[in-house]
Amino acid sequence: MSEEAIKIGLLGLGTVGSGAYKIIEKNQDLLKSRTGIGFEVTKILVSNPQKKRRVNVPQELLTTDTSSILHDPQIDVVVELMGGVTASYHYIKEALEQGKYVVTANKDLMATKGEELHRLAAEKNVKIFYEASVGGGIPLIRPLQNSLGANRILRIMGIINGTTNYILTKMSLESMDFDSALAEAQAKGFAEKDPSSDLEGWDAAYKLAILARLAFDSAIDIDDVHREGISMVDIRDIQYAKELGFTIKLLAIGEDLEKGIALKVHPTLVPLNHPLASVNHEFNALFVEGDAVGEVMFFGRGAGEMPTGSSVVADLMDAAREIKLGDKSPSLQPSEKRNILPVSELVSPFYLRLQATDEPGVFGYLATVFGGENISLDMIIQKRSEGGIAEIVLVTHAVQEKKLEAALNKVHKFAAIERVASVYRVIEKK
Amino acid sequence: MSEEAIKIGLLGLGTVGSGAYKIIEKNQDLLKSRTGIGFEVTKILVSNPQKKRRVNVPQELLTTDTSSILHDPQIDVVVELMGGVTASYHYIKEALEQGKYVVTANKDLMATKGEELHRLAAEKNVKIFYEASVGGGIPLIRPLQNSLGANRILRIMGIINGTTNYILTKMSLESMDFDSALAEAQAKGFAEKDPSSDLEGWDAAYKLAILARLAFDSAIDIDDVHREGISMVDIRDIQYAKELGFTIKLLAIGEDLEKGIALKVHPTLVPLNHPLASVNHEFNALFVEGDAVGEVMFFGRGAGEMPTGSSVVADLMDAAREIKLGDKSPSLQPSEKRNILPVSELVSPFYLRLQATDEPGVFGYLATVFGGENISLDMIIQKRSEGGIAEIVLVTHAVQEKKLEAALNKVHKFAAIERVASVYRVIEKK
Repeated sequence: MSEEAIKIGLLGLGTVGSGAYKIIEKNQDLLKSRTGIGFEVTKILVSNPQKKRRVNVPQELLTTDTSSILHDPQIDVVVELMGGVTASYHYIKEALEQGKYVVTANKDLMATKGEELHRLAAEKNVKIFYEASVGGGIPLIRPLQNSLGANRILRIMGIINGTTNYILTKMSLESMDFDSALAEAQAKGFAEKDPSSDLEGWDAAYKLAILARLAFDSAIDIDDVHREGISMVDIRDIQYAKELGFTIKLLAIGEDLEKGIALKVHPTLVPLNHPLASVNHEFNALFVEGDAVGEVMFFGRGAGEMPTGSSVVADLMDAAREIKLGDKSPSLQPSEKRNILPVSELVSPFYLRLQATDEPGVFGYLATVFGGENISLDMIIQKRSEGGIAEIVLVTHAVQEKKLEAALNKVHKFAAIERVASVYRVIEKK
Repeated sequence: MSEEAIKIGLLGLGTVGSGAYKIIEKNQDLLKSRTGIGFEVTKILVSNPQKKRRVNVPQELLTTDTSSILHDPQIDVVVELMGGVTASYHYIKEALEQGKYVVTANKDLMATKGEELHRLAAEKNVKIFYEASVGGGIPLIRPLQNSLGANRILRIMGIINGTTNYILTKMSLESMDFDSALAEAQAKGFAEKDPSSDLEGWDAAYKLAILARLAFDSAIDIDDVHREGISMVDIRDIQYAKELGFTIKLLAIGEDLEKGIALKVHPTLVPLNHPLASVNHEFNALFVEGDAVGEVMFFGRGAGEMPTGSSVVADLMDAAREIKLGDKSPSLQPSEKRNILPVSELVSPFYLRLQATDEPGVFGYLATVFGGENISLDMIIQKRSEGGIAEIVLVTHAVQEKKLEAALNKVHKFAAIERVASVYRVIEKK
């Protein structure tokens, strides 16, 4: 290839690496005609060069020697697709130090070390791109940075973890219980053998931290994100939610409130007519509210070889234009850390499922307790009791979380209340 | 303001102009912190400086003298928000000739003169930005150009006209007839007094031409778009569609087929579980299928003061970065015109509503005619006849349009067929 080709070193040739490689091979002509630049993968770091691959790669590209990539003066861009946060962190730092552009799909790393890596890139007059780290193939990073840049972003709400959305969809549409839905997700490759990072909301929390950084112009620490997973979601909750006109989704929510930013990942009752309610199976979506644009939503496949590869190669195109043509994409401006609000200060309606012995006075007691905290009730379901235990479902009007907690502490003390089985936040119906 | 401010001349202070002005005023600090650049509107072209405005603008900014903007060496960017294709075309050309950047929301102009204006801008080493010309506040132009740039785009399908979507939604969800729905859309400001450009699909066709240019790397003429409007859509069709599991939407569809590109705007039966089916009221959405990314969708408000203003100011931010910081956004590469396929060659399932006198042999005849053209039927509804006229609804399997036409020509000749009342294309269920 001519001098006009950009030379790429890949770190990792797993699912996403294979996807990126395939796209560069298959759409070579298209990339060249759209940018005027050729794209050439010249080296690929793998741990075992003999391993059978999901993509045909000339054997001579494979290497186990990281340094031969990071210190190759011919290589313009290092693409990190190994995952993890230890080796990848050192390799990316070294690549930047060497004056190379970096493209990465590593959400854990960008969520925890993003500020530092951006600062180092700016010092070295290069850039780090990471569109593939959130939402797979869905354009999210660029729209937040550019297309929606004129907006004060008021809220972002996303279904940004495909595993949990697949499980909740199966529970909701096919009345599967949690364990069967998880087993099916694992069988189909939508959930890992150890699914805890997805189920406990860690994956979504990392992604939220990355998006919130851009939406709210604030440095974000992963511990700023309040996090609740889906492993406690019961099929009964999904059925009650449906009766009330809701579906249950694991949402990642960031809000710019007057006094600070709120960041949360939790199972949420979403009204059935909300655009997020029909985002099902392994699909992801990000719903954004801006002060000018109003409501916009971005929808698509949030993971997978080719979708994620699509974002990696889009980043490579931006890097190539910048290196070869001097077309600079906007830099991330450094931001001070803004005030992060604790969830106890936040306000939202709540869904509660209580189990009580079927005796007179339970409702009267609940009414007194909630009334005492000024919590008014929007919806109530009580079904005939089974085995002497009645199930009571309540949806409150908007209430501050610490007031709800105070009320629930009193509810727990009442002997007739066997259990507060579920407590979920609710997106208000419009 | 300092030298770091970009000086803006607005042409037009109607709905979108007011929105852009308000955003620049309200979010001044934000724009400055995100770009490092100040934004200053220094002159505004209006036809009547005394007119009462929807926004507070210092009287001294207003001028009726176009030349005082186009030839002001202080002005960096001219923002054309007047609409129309005659004066705006000359003003934009003059602005580019003068070495000024241009931002426009003018879809008619960009669809018909886009290639020429891009060429002129490139010659003068400036740019023309037009995110606001399609989809109001929804990011569409940039994602197609950048984020999805690694993909061969196979298909774009959009609800990109809010007026017709509002009318079809009212007909579908509230069983309104066409005339009442149109009257309500006009009363709410979603339809113009003369709604023909929207109803007949012209507005959607212009927007499709702009999007297809980017998606398929081809020059496009507006006459390349096959166009059918919604004014013939009957409430009965919407009801039958619902029975069959569909809703009717005005879709703008562009496809990259093996032998060329197909471009069409027409009422379409969309399966109820398709993401476009739940895009209702004045909302717009673009559904994109790429060879790598799979399916993605962009959703939001496709018109209005603030949403469209949001896109105008995003373009201004890009222009400002380029002018003041040398951050260049990608240029549109010139493209040859690709082959455009006539609709007669295209293939899709069809929905047909026929009215026939209620006599024996009608079904037998239809079966013979369709069978003779190798057209197989997927769904059939026949309801009890009213006044001796039976209504027969058929959905075919995928068929080439010229074969369907040949069959319909025979159907017309059969005396028992009173009328072929409706013929609509269908998006296949998955």
